[in-house]
Amino acid sequence: MWAELLPVGRSSASGGYRRYAWTPADTDCRTWFREQAEARGLTYETDRNGNQWAWLGDPAAGDAVVTGSHLDSVPDGGAFDGPLGVVSAFAALDELRGRGARLTRPLGIVNFGDEEGARFGLACVGSRLTTGALTVEQAHRLTDGDGITLPQAMEAAGHDPETIGPDPERLARIGAFVELHVEQGRALDLSGDRIGIASAIWPHGRWRFDFRGEANHAGTTRLADRRDPMLSYAETVLAARREAELAGAVATFGKIAVEPNGVNAIPSLVRGWLDSRAADQESLDTVVGGVEKAAREYAAAHGADLDVVRESFTPVVEFDHALRDELARILGGDTGTDLRVPVLGTGAGHDAGILSGRVPTAMLFVRNPTGVSHSPAEYAAEDDCVAGVSALADVLEGLART
Amino acid sequence: MWAELLPVGRSSASGGYRRYAWTPADTDCRTWFREQAEARGLTYETDRNGNQWAWLGDPAAGDAVVTGSHLDSVPDGGAFDGPLGVVSAFAALDELRGRGARLTRPLGIVNFGDEEGARFGLACVGSRLTTGALTVEQAHRLTDGDGITLPQAMEAAGHDPETIGPDPERLARIGAFVELHVEQGRALDLSGDRIGIASAIWPHGRWRFDFRGEANHAGTTRLADRRDPMLSYAETVLAARREAELAGAVATFGKIAVEPNGVNAIPSLVRGWLDSRAADQESLDTVVGGVEKAAREYAAAHGADLDVVRESFTPVVEFDHALRDELARILGGDTGTDLRVPVLGTGAGHDAGILSGRVPTAMLFVRNPTGVSHSPAEYAAEDDCVAGVSALADVLEGLART
Repeated sequence: MWAELLPVGRSSASGGYRRYAWTPADTDCRTWFREQAEARGLTYETDRNGNQWAWLGDPAAGDAVVTGSHLDSVPDGGAFDGPLGVVSAFAALDELRGRGARLTRPLGIVNFGDEEGARFGLACVGSRLTTGALTVEQAHRLTDGDGITLPQAMEAAGHDPETIGPDPERLARIGAFVELHVEQGRALDLSGDRIGIASAIWPHGRWRFDFRGEANHAGTTRLADRRDPMLSYAETVLAARREAELAGAVATFGKIAVEPNGVNAIPSLVRGWLDSRAADQESLDTVVGGVEKAAREYAAAHGADLDVVRESFTPVVEFDHALRDELARILGGDTGTDLRVPVLGTGAGHDAGILSGRVPTAMLFVRNPTGVSHSPAEYAAEDDCVAGVSALADVLEGLART
Repeated sequence: MWAELLPVGRSSASGGYRRYAWTPADTDCRTWFREQAEARGLTYETDRNGNQWAWLGDPAAGDAVVTGSHLDSVPDGGAFDGPLGVVSAFAALDELRGRGARLTRPLGIVNFGDEEGARFGLACVGSRLTTGALTVEQAHRLTDGDGITLPQAMEAAGHDPETIGPDPERLARIGAFVELHVEQGRALDLSGDRIGIASAIWPHGRWRFDFRGEANHAGTTRLADRRDPMLSYAETVLAARREAELAGAVATFGKIAVEPNGVNAIPSLVRGWLDSRAADQESLDTVVGGVEKAAREYAAAHGADLDVVRESFTPVVEFDHALRDELARILGGDTGTDLRVPVLGTGAGHDAGILSGRVPTAMLFVRNPTGVSHSPAEYAAEDDCVAGVSALADVLEGLART
């Protein structure tokens, strides 16, 4: 199962994955999901927003237990972020059948579309549309780097964009959602545990900084006559690092677009994206406010204009306490093993975070020995992945037979 | 003539030109050149390196007087850089015919291919190949941003890449080359003159700085665990500005490529290109050496690796003194006007600079009221362009009848 998915959308140059929403690589991943569902005799469906579902039992009965994650990737991403949760979902179902587990609630496996936002710049589009956190009007305005809109991309991939929108009936059928995910830090590695339970997702967001100056010849324009936006961009990158250090947060400028981007041309536009996250809202406000204030001063000093646009934002997400405690009980007690399952926070956003406002939601993390993520070097040991499947099976059985 | 060329390769979004070597826009410019030559009954030819020539008289007679420039552009460039020299060449020929001028030397008009280097990263490819300053082996290694090699691009545009290489016989036929160009600074505007004569081209070059770190998740990777190459890039951009200020030179980071360039990914690679120029070699060495030293310190401090590659370099070019004095005599004396023609240096590279090692070469500059160049805002007043054509006609007549 894992072996069939591994080559899909992998770049031979970087070894990383380029599974962007509604591209041919994404379609291949979706075909893989459908085949896995059908091979197990599950009821398959694609919902109005392009999320894929596979059902054991009738979801219309309600109070369903759902697990899953996403199959798309960041640019040159790793093999585990997303796919581990979907593959583990199918593997846990296989394990439950092997155990002869008797489930009284419907069990669903989901692949949420466009979780990473690599193509349209907004993460968790599939789950945001379903919950209504992203409106249809907002979705219509999403555009990729080639000027293709989200509806156009959906249509090109064979999904009818007319159907998109909130899906409260579908959400109402879900009694619990559990997402398994490779850890994207080193907390489990440092504590020596294979599996963890999420406590909360840090508040996080993306801000676009547009520094506009004046394009001019790099060889003949006197320094005093320049309005070079690259200088204030550079100062802002360094300011973001300082502000994050002071607040114990993270802040990153990882994406940039420059116009005209010529070797011998002073740029007219330097557009940088700030990603920032912190343990609480006040710290995040301090970081982003500090970066923006510094950027405005630098831009003014270099004769550049600055626009700052918040492109996305997710407040702190506290996962459902009752469900979290139930997972801890299932994993700590009934299994009879000495598996210790710590509870930890995370700086990464997930579909589980989007759903948590509407559905009791929890997350399981699988140890990542280096903490590296969003890179071809992202990794989880086979033993730990197997422990993850087993823990997920325990959780699903424990929830679905209650 | 000018009106026909204006819409070719112009972006409706930016208003700037995107006439990159061997693209459809470049082919359209070449068609325009050929039609101008043929409409005037000139002998047209494309040389082995894709430069276009239009001849009045037989170039095989030798000691030809040649004028011209280039038609390609930087990304979102202006209308004048290059085209003004080619259009003025045809217009000057028309003026000479109108005057009934009797020329004893062959007169040539040239459009050098790929002067800006916007596509393959090396400027003046057409003239460099012709003089041998760029070898065939080096040319075969030139690759654009999509991985297309120069020979592949030539072939796709209908030019046989097998023919490229040095062309000493062609150079031997040229007795003098004069390139007219819009000024790319404000010296003429500040002195109040319409036309200037070039003294020298500053030594200049392009250096590629590859900062390599480790791709990782921007939300979950602790600051202390990061190897973020964007930080050392940012510090280096600021160091370049400081070094240039200290040396009275110019230094610019105007082009950047980031991998994976995702909003929520710490970059694995930040590649920045430094363009630097100074009045003399020692100053240039000081600037570039200082920037590289600072960059290495910053990279080491942030756990990044740094490679610095000099991608192109042109030593100081002193134009032929005898020809320069002859131009000053022609423009200052015979015309009977009170046109004052100052002599000035320039930080911009030109095909004239490449040719000057092999052929007596001179340049005329036309006033640029804002100094803006390599931008849609690049401009020269119609009166000044007409004065440029008239001055060029005087120079060509003065040289070609001697």
